[in-house]
Amino acid sequence: MTSASLDALAGVQLYFKCENLQRSGSFKMRGASNAVFSLSDEDAARGVVTHSSGNHAAALALAASRRGIRAWIVMPSDSPQIKQRGVAACGAEITVCEPTLAAREAAARDVMKHTGAVMIHPYDDDRIIAGQATAAVELIEQVPDLDYILAPVSGGGLLSGIGLATRHLRPAARVIGCEPAQADDAARSLASGKLEPASKGTTIADGLRATLSQRTLGILQRTADAIALVTEDEIIAIMQLLWERLKIVVEPSGAVAAAPAIFRRLNAEGRKVGIVLSGGNVDPATLRSTMGERNG
Amino acid sequence: MTSASLDALAGVQLYFKCENLQRSGSFKMRGASNAVFSLSDEDAARGVVTHSSGNHAAALALAASRRGIRAWIVMPSDSPQIKQRGVAACGAEITVCEPTLAAREAAARDVMKHTGAVMIHPYDDDRIIAGQATAAVELIEQVPDLDYILAPVSGGGLLSGIGLATRHLRPAARVIGCEPAQADDAARSLASGKLEPASKGTTIADGLRATLSQRTLGILQRTADAIALVTEDEIIAIMQLLWERLKIVVEPSGAVAAAPAIFRRLNAEGRKVGIVLSGGNVDPATLRSTMGERNG
Repeated sequence: MTSASLDALAGVQLYFKCENLQRSGSFKMRGASNAVFSLSDEDAARGVVTHSSGNHAAALALAASRRGIRAWIVMPSDSPQIKQRGVAACGAEITVCEPTLAAREAAARDVMKHTGAVMIHPYDDDRIIAGQATAAVELIEQVPDLDYILAPVSGGGLLSGIGLATRHLRPAARVIGCEPAQADDAARSLASGKLEPASKGTTIADGLRATLSQRTLGILQRTADAIALVTEDEIIAIMQLLWERLKIVVEPSGAVAAAPAIFRRLNAEGRKVGIVLSGGNVDPATLRSTMGERNG
Repeated sequence: MTSASLDALAGVQLYFKCENLQRSGSFKMRGASNAVFSLSDEDAARGVVTHSSGNHAAALALAASRRGIRAWIVMPSDSPQIKQRGVAACGAEITVCEPTLAAREAAARDVMKHTGAVMIHPYDDDRIIAGQATAAVELIEQVPDLDYILAPVSGGGLLSGIGLATRHLRPAARVIGCEPAQADDAARSLASGKLEPASKGTTIADGLRATLSQRTLGILQRTADAIALVTEDEIIAIMQLLWERLKIVVEPSGAVAAAPAIFRRLNAEGRKVGIVLSGGNVDPATLRSTMGERNG
């Protein structure tokens, strides 16, 4: 998507890759599809398992349903009912656990032990990263002379795929990861060269709270040019701008990558800037709370 | 756009024509562009004038700006500031008048007298109707075997264009106009065979309060199969479903045509149903008020 009025605001040519319009409502469908459909028939017959409260859960459930195999999804007890219903609607079996990473991992191991299902990690997996890379492949096919690609970074699966694809197909483009200042572990990890712990801040961008893995940190060290930090107010302002000007709903995590360009922090006057709007799954209360009247 | 989950809900195959994603945010850009660009150079040099509080104003201002000619827009004093700013941003000159039809028409005549500008009526104009028809032309090109086309009806410009195009390109398809039960003059006019006055009800669908003209009534008598009425609650429920499932923002008037199909009032099990989502220009307060949690 493009918008003349947002271009004027940003001072650059913006090309939005609208992964909020993707099946299952986020880019996660790319990696989940690649992982599920690249399983051998023997492995596929065992089914797949993951732990996720969010978009990876929905995507894996849908991808498994499309291949006609079983899926077990471990979801923390605080994940929204609407997301649990969406996963159940795809025929996946949900195991509810305590909302801690330890409980999630233990429950997933338990499912693997009892069912033999194949674990599909949300980002620490080459099949997932290769799937997410297709977002950049398509964007570069449509806009071959892109100067920048901006995408959110959480666990780093999406940004790793985008970095690898861009270095191969459009090496001149700068790859910028974007994350909330309140969840800045990727920026700190790339600065220090080692995995840094999660931030203690809270952010409305609930999909961006995961931390890099050794695998994604290594890929980003070779392929990402910079990490840009975005404030909570900026995330909300971008969500509002996107519905006002593009008439689309983007979840907080999905809006982050538009902020550095629209708030003119790239020093890229007149350049072509690709932005991955990574998802659109937002619950009614969050959406309502972000739809306040802005000043001016 | 299509959605497997909305198809399951509706029991038909839905094909959404997303005019909310159109330039200027509604289908009105089609008719306004056709009217402005079909003017002779001599007429164009005089500029164009209209009276409108809504989407036609923005579309005419943008179309005139694209041709590089002047536009005067008469807007009632109660039209939202956000819409006045949008029109002004295109370089159009705004005349604010009292919020009555008589005051709007008088102000437009006054502009014509002083400037010589050409009046472009929002719907009672063959150039406008021909422009709006292109929405159906494109939809039928993409889905040649459509069984139904549903579109909102207000003054009848859009539905007239769709009716004419459909009778020509896909005569087997049924053309259904949709309007709020609270603004049902089109249904009454087609039933009685003459122009009926506006309803006294109020509707959230602020774009659907105009009444047919003799021209559009005549076209609809020949080309429309039926008019379906939609309740206020249904309009809000459809707006919510569209952002939840399609991740798009549709204004109340733009959501109306989806209701008869999604609430299964067509008796069209398994058929292919095209739906014109006519616009996406909704102010923050209205959007917020429609984003409440639904039951179930």
